[in-house]
Amino acid sequence: MRILINGRAEDRLDARDRGLHYGDGVFETIAVIDGRPRFPAWHFERLAHGATCLGIPLPDFDRLLAEITAACTEPRGVAKIIVTRGVGPRGYRPPVHPEPTRIVAASPWPDWEPARWSEGVRLGWCRTRYGRNPALAGIKHLNRLEQVLARAEWDDGAMDEGLMQDDRDGVISATQANVFARIDGQWTTPALDQCGVAGIMRRAFLGWSADSGNPVVARVLPARELASATQLFLTNALIGAWPVREFAGRRLPLDPAVARFNEWLAQQ
Amino acid sequence: MRILINGRAEDRLDARDRGLHYGDGVFETIAVIDGRPRFPAWHFERLAHGATCLGIPLPDFDRLLAEITAACTEPRGVAKIIVTRGVGPRGYRPPVHPEPTRIVAASPWPDWEPARWSEGVRLGWCRTRYGRNPALAGIKHLNRLEQVLARAEWDDGAMDEGLMQDDRDGVISATQANVFARIDGQWTTPALDQCGVAGIMRRAFLGWSADSGNPVVARVLPARELASATQLFLTNALIGAWPVREFAGRRLPLDPAVARFNEWLAQQ
Repeated sequence: MRILINGRAEDRLDARDRGLHYGDGVFETIAVIDGRPRFPAWHFERLAHGATCLGIPLPDFDRLLAEITAACTEPRGVAKIIVTRGVGPRGYRPPVHPEPTRIVAASPWPDWEPARWSEGVRLGWCRTRYGRNPALAGIKHLNRLEQVLARAEWDDGAMDEGLMQDDRDGVISATQANVFARIDGQWTTPALDQCGVAGIMRRAFLGWSADSGNPVVARVLPARELASATQLFLTNALIGAWPVREFAGRRLPLDPAVARFNEWLAQQ
Repeated sequence: MRILINGRAEDRLDARDRGLHYGDGVFETIAVIDGRPRFPAWHFERLAHGATCLGIPLPDFDRLLAEITAACTEPRGVAKIIVTRGVGPRGYRPPVHPEPTRIVAASPWPDWEPARWSEGVRLGWCRTRYGRNPALAGIKHLNRLEQVLARAEWDDGAMDEGLMQDDRDGVISATQANVFARIDGQWTTPALDQCGVAGIMRRAFLGWSADSGNPVVARVLPARELASATQLFLTNALIGAWPVREFAGRRLPLDPAVARFNEWLAQQ
């Protein structure tokens, strides 16, 4: 892993950083394809929105782009950006003039088997739920313990991803992906105004699908409705879209729209 | 600030640590009085409980105590302990064999004016709320953005602490302290089975008060009930107990029990 901290090659961080102490920051995970970050403007827009919600000064977009290029020396890889409120005195109170910490880290592209796209993945339920907090909903902030606990629930032998609900039995997302369900012929995805992360690939699919004449409905999605879903798929910034071939023990047919979306994505 | 990381004098941390990336860890803030940590067994018990809930291997108690003593060279100070799941590969999934990171940091004792104890503090409401998640309730984990946002709401000129509610209009705590309210003659404190941090000084007061023949009731505490509270006070591991002299613009008399508790505390 190659890491830049505030622009300098560095793999260690000030132990007083508020990112560590309180999760006081935001992050992005960006696919780098053919040496170029994918959807950089959208990632930056979400990062900026999250930083604004938390009151953290924004990093410079062009500088971030240059650092991604400097860190990601392989044609294909993963760039992770973290922006924290930086070092501060003891206590939750944010410093009046924060000096944010900017971390850009490059990782190798994960070695998922191609069958995840062509044949689909197995999806189950997680017991761990999201708490609801509109003040933090949608933001990719550094408080991610709920997803960590959910992801700790299974070994890869049992399933490939797990769906999480909120405390009202509403589906929110998989641990590392957004979810879409075809219900009564209509693609549907959970509204994320109470919790969850509004993914960049979710945004890409919403746009692509609307442009294709099949707009997706984003709404409260009670877990029991998934019993009548005819197809499911998952999205995130790295995978694009994975169709679900098995959900909670039930076989599902793959939807050709998912393959078409991935083809479109490959041309971006 | 003097810092030990895994026992070594060190002020920088591996930037891949999951404490930074996900808030994947727990912490304690411990008063060091006359060179000795106060209530070390209770702090360690809570740390161990939190680590167990998250599936993080426990640090050795005696080693932690020795590190606190080594880091805190002043007779009076603050020891902060952080235990994270350590470095791991990319993604929420916890490593099967985590190697936790153990941080012990010493800070100077804060310079609060003595009037906070003798004359009381001013308390108001925060707009930022706690999300509810029983899986994380009570634990002093590293996901603390809600309290950061709440603490960012006011400048010290306006008030000294702010009360936070959950999404059901239940009082939970101040941003950095637990809260007690005397209602119909009965000391009451919010139950913390949905969110909030179960403080060590809250535990100390519950025990002291029960031993004094005045047991505290811990229950759901609707915010509207505070209108009829005749006294309020705040507790945390450093301050002991601060009586509240003004709450949301209303003058409150100080309860002599608070001063008696602080006297008892000074003898521990």
